[in-house]
Amino acid sequence: MDLWFTEKQTKDFGITAKIKRTLHTEKTDFQDLDMIETNEWGNMLVLDGMVMTTQKDEFVYHEMISHVPLFTHPNPQNVLVVGGGDGGVIREILKHPSVQKAVLVEIDGKVIEYSKQYLPEIAGKLEDPRVEVKVTDGFMHIAESEDAYDIILVDSTEPVGPAVQLFSKGFYAGISKALKTDGVFVAQTDNPWFKADLIQQVYQDVKEIFPITKLYTANIPTYPSGLWTFTMGSKTHHPLEVKQDRFHEIDTKYYTEEIHQACFALPKFVKDLTK
Amino acid sequence: MDLWFTEKQTKDFGITAKIKRTLHTEKTDFQDLDMIETNEWGNMLVLDGMVMTTQKDEFVYHEMISHVPLFTHPNPQNVLVVGGGDGGVIREILKHPSVQKAVLVEIDGKVIEYSKQYLPEIAGKLEDPRVEVKVTDGFMHIAESEDAYDIILVDSTEPVGPAVQLFSKGFYAGISKALKTDGVFVAQTDNPWFKADLIQQVYQDVKEIFPITKLYTANIPTYPSGLWTFTMGSKTHHPLEVKQDRFHEIDTKYYTEEIHQACFALPKFVKDLTK
Repeated sequence: MDLWFTEKQTKDFGITAKIKRTLHTEKTDFQDLDMIETNEWGNMLVLDGMVMTTQKDEFVYHEMISHVPLFTHPNPQNVLVVGGGDGGVIREILKHPSVQKAVLVEIDGKVIEYSKQYLPEIAGKLEDPRVEVKVTDGFMHIAESEDAYDIILVDSTEPVGPAVQLFSKGFYAGISKALKTDGVFVAQTDNPWFKADLIQQVYQDVKEIFPITKLYTANIPTYPSGLWTFTMGSKTHHPLEVKQDRFHEIDTKYYTEEIHQACFALPKFVKDLTK
Repeated sequence: MDLWFTEKQTKDFGITAKIKRTLHTEKTDFQDLDMIETNEWGNMLVLDGMVMTTQKDEFVYHEMISHVPLFTHPNPQNVLVVGGGDGGVIREILKHPSVQKAVLVEIDGKVIEYSKQYLPEIAGKLEDPRVEVKVTDGFMHIAESEDAYDIILVDSTEPVGPAVQLFSKGFYAGISKALKTDGVFVAQTDNPWFKADLIQQVYQDVKEIFPITKLYTANIPTYPSGLWTFTMGSKTHHPLEVKQDRFHEIDTKYYTEEIHQACFALPKFVKDLTK
């Protein structure tokens, strides 16, 4: 019997992947969680029917949400990840020797549990002594934090289900308050082919709060359209004015110093969303 | 009844698109040709089961295969397109006022015929007086040409079926001969996620023939992995040393002067294919 998992990325278009077996399936307190073993992408975490991460292409997302802001900040020591229960962003953050503490605030403990079990090369660094894992509401954690972090990364699901409030202006204002005076923030902000309105809205909201607001992209084959965007809000540090000697050797498969610059060059129809 | 078209981009992964109807289906002398009307992407040309172009995202491919080399060359007058029967590359070429003649050599006249009928905004410029359309074998046309073109663009299908010989070293040597002494050549060379070997092979072959060989990328959501590569071979002009005043105003939706530079910045795992 051939089994295929299909994600409808829009109501009229999707991706489909042959699967070897379902490793785990559960309705958690927050969402439907499925872990499947696919032939093409290895193990794949699916939340509410949407691909969150796969063993084969996870490096793109995790490197690009992390290293662009962490190289933008001259001395990132305290880093917060909202969401990101698979642990991939934490793994990348810890590649920066300046980082002393990385806090992960994930609302759904089951994501952490099953990522540790089935995606060990992604989640393995959650055990590092520099990491503090809090299973709680990211929105509340942000509301309670002040002048606490150098970097905040929002590694959320799409703006449906538990992540809706993570795409609100109030949340970005809270992030600004939770950041130190030269803090940098990045959120994943979906794709320009199917979610242009979302990108536009987030960009305008962030721009009203952060002096430096920039959109950048990366290619993620299992995400809708393959072209993913990240929105950066920065208080003082400009991502395109990083001093050459700041770039240190780092073990990556996607990110390079060249990509750090180039990822901010937007295709015209994407650039138009920032106007 | 819900009808969905699925392209298996690998044996274990694909894309699937809801269709309104099949506009035309035919086994030509060279390949299976299907024109379908999809909900998400508008009309879509499918050859041998593979998406060739769609009304919604065609601009990316057509702009990026054309404008990068046409801005690299200081005065492109005579341009050859091998393949490209849908006419999209011709449309982009003609946006450059220096172009006096654009020759299209397409092996399958049916591709031209049905593109004119169902993709008029893509194929419309095939009627321009500067355009000469030849329905013949591109490999033979190249073999018979010498010192004839400023630019040659290879807009072929995948290296299966009629396009196999368009991915051979002999073909690239022929292209070099067919180009003038400062000619520039670009071929579409598939994606790095599923076809890394092909990219590596083409790059090495082209590098043995052209003094300047460069790989660049663009995001094309309906193509496998969404990350597409183009390989450029150039005799004298370097794509990253284009004089600022060469860039003239041009009507595009993806290409910009910034993208011209940034598209050559390769993700690390792609850059590694050029070593």
